[in-house]
Amino acid sequence: MHSDISGADLRYMRLALSLARRGLGRVWPNPAVGCVIVRDGRIVGRGWTQPGGRPHAEPIALEQAGAAAKGATAYVTLEPCAHHGKTPPCAEALISAGIARVVCALRDPDPRVDGGGFDMLRAAGITVDTGVCEAAARADQAGFLSRVTRGRPMLTLKLASSFDGRIATASGESQWITGPQARRHVHAMRATHDAVMIGAGTARDDDPSLTVRGLGVAHQPVRVVLSRHLDLPLGSQLARTAHDVPLWVCHGRRAAPELIAAWKGIGATLIEVAEAQATLDPVSVLTALGDRGLTRVYCEGGGGLAASLLMADVVDDLVGYGAGVALGAEGRPSLAAMGISRLFEAPRFGLVECRDIGGDVLHRWTRIARA
Amino acid sequence: MHSDISGADLRYMRLALSLARRGLGRVWPNPAVGCVIVRDGRIVGRGWTQPGGRPHAEPIALEQAGAAAKGATAYVTLEPCAHHGKTPPCAEALISAGIARVVCALRDPDPRVDGGGFDMLRAAGITVDTGVCEAAARADQAGFLSRVTRGRPMLTLKLASSFDGRIATASGESQWITGPQARRHVHAMRATHDAVMIGAGTARDDDPSLTVRGLGVAHQPVRVVLSRHLDLPLGSQLARTAHDVPLWVCHGRRAAPELIAAWKGIGATLIEVAEAQATLDPVSVLTALGDRGLTRVYCEGGGGLAASLLMADVVDDLVGYGAGVALGAEGRPSLAAMGISRLFEAPRFGLVECRDIGGDVLHRWTRIARA
Repeated sequence: MHSDISGADLRYMRLALSLARRGLGRVWPNPAVGCVIVRDGRIVGRGWTQPGGRPHAEPIALEQAGAAAKGATAYVTLEPCAHHGKTPPCAEALISAGIARVVCALRDPDPRVDGGGFDMLRAAGITVDTGVCEAAARADQAGFLSRVTRGRPMLTLKLASSFDGRIATASGESQWITGPQARRHVHAMRATHDAVMIGAGTARDDDPSLTVRGLGVAHQPVRVVLSRHLDLPLGSQLARTAHDVPLWVCHGRRAAPELIAAWKGIGATLIEVAEAQATLDPVSVLTALGDRGLTRVYCEGGGGLAASLLMADVVDDLVGYGAGVALGAEGRPSLAAMGISRLFEAPRFGLVECRDIGGDVLHRWTRIARA
Repeated sequence: MHSDISGADLRYMRLALSLARRGLGRVWPNPAVGCVIVRDGRIVGRGWTQPGGRPHAEPIALEQAGAAAKGATAYVTLEPCAHHGKTPPCAEALISAGIARVVCALRDPDPRVDGGGFDMLRAAGITVDTGVCEAAARADQAGFLSRVTRGRPMLTLKLASSFDGRIATASGESQWITGPQARRHVHAMRATHDAVMIGAGTARDDDPSLTVRGLGVAHQPVRVVLSRHLDLPLGSQLARTAHDVPLWVCHGRRAAPELIAAWKGIGATLIEVAEAQATLDPVSVLTALGDRGLTRVYCEGGGGLAASLLMADVVDDLVGYGAGVALGAEGRPSLAAMGISRLFEAPRFGLVECRDIGGDVLHRWTRIARA
């Protein structure tokens, strides 16, 4: 369906993609979609999925366009929805507004849509071109696609370490291995994910708040803590802020009922998940988070949780911050034991980007499918 | 003395610097110098220090220039020598050839020169401009400067590791964590250093040859192995090639005389150095190498030697190759224990470069002076 795709089509779609990205981390359980409406070479409407997931991108762009939508082209980053959810289907809205052509990046695999949006548009006589900038849209929508097709959110794993892969000294000192620009980047990563996740050890050792700070961002991601026995201090920063910023605590079957009650009492959401050997099962954790609507999760360690996620092969992206400091083998490892004895068993990632970030090395990788 | 420096002067000096770099790794104990002679805006001579350190750059460029050297400007990356060594002083050669002006990047701190070359030129009526591209010349000459001012070669430490700082699996498997382009870069680094150095553990575990291969380079750096007790296999690749490529073995005072004799017998050079606790003292090792003329040493590990060099604060540059593979905490650490308990005690390096090298991350750092 690429027969009539022009350079202008690519430019408008790239604009729609950049609008869509504004929603990343704040529209779950919905996808972050962007829409641009163009009439006679002039942009007459722009929209993106609003915080909380509604309104969708298309009605916002259509409202801006008003009467100019008649005969116009709509660029949408994801197939317009065809089902009556909490809002009427966007495909219907495009038809009613008199849109003549829809250019779309990606088919929505949600079984309630899955080509149904395109069918509705075509049945109404609208020209539909699909697959424009599809790879970029697929990358941006990785979280939504993962939830729909795999039943769990996409997972980004962060590792901020010394030159030799250590995340803290033997005494636990980790502030600060990396510099202020790298730490600012971490906050930006938090802001574009639906949730930030850590293990119980990191919660105890670092007492972090896991909020987004210093970026002028009001929205906060959900904080997720994994603690099999709920043996976390109720006086911690996470606990004390649970009424203001969502805190979800994943625990095992045998967590004490009085602890469950105490954490519920301070405003946390408690989620019981299956266990695997001595830890919570990573797939069960992520499936539980997906069931609750999360599409993009950012894991900030520590080494034990990071290793268990890699071993379960649920890490999609790795983001590393490497500092020019040497800590030596007494330092805490960025990844705990993984049971790997041969190189071919080790999970491999492909390099996406590497650059200087305020004197540290930022390196981003994405999972390479196993052969 | 920068009053009359033009853009053309900078361009000719940069050319001279690039010529000088051709000598890196093959002119020890001498500095790798470049020389460009320009007459009426035309380059009439180019020269660089030849393998083995002689002839020097200036006589080669002067010979090319012939009669055109009269009234010409000579661009030299290091102060021309003023002393009679194995060759007559280059300052004298420049004077005899009728050079009218000498532009120089760097004063030679060797006490036999140390401004004496400039004095000779000026006394002969030659205009001398110094300090042109000095920072670049200083970086290129770091090895020579280190030997003259600190009595030991500059040291580059290489660490090729997994995402989490591991250089091998628990079973010792390390071929290959990084890809072919990174490994090719390692060979290029070997070729631009006077010597490649490893610890006894790496010699035993990996049985490397440490030669430069695949680059069309005939010249080979000295191979240096540190082994306190000389407990290295005499059937190893290093031992078997000792008659063809120089092999220097640094050992402690109590190495068995029969082992010393055996290693001498196969063509190795034996160097006794002082010990510090359970290892060879890094400063004694490097001083011994400096005494024998080495100016640039490239250390390829393993983790124990790397840690002891960092603790002794003798590492000038770090070159890291980071692969997108996760090995976990059973893997061998890139740096052994360093006795660091607080972050402020850890040696810090400043980022020089980071880039994609065939899907791995190449990151280069240089030592930041301690406060």
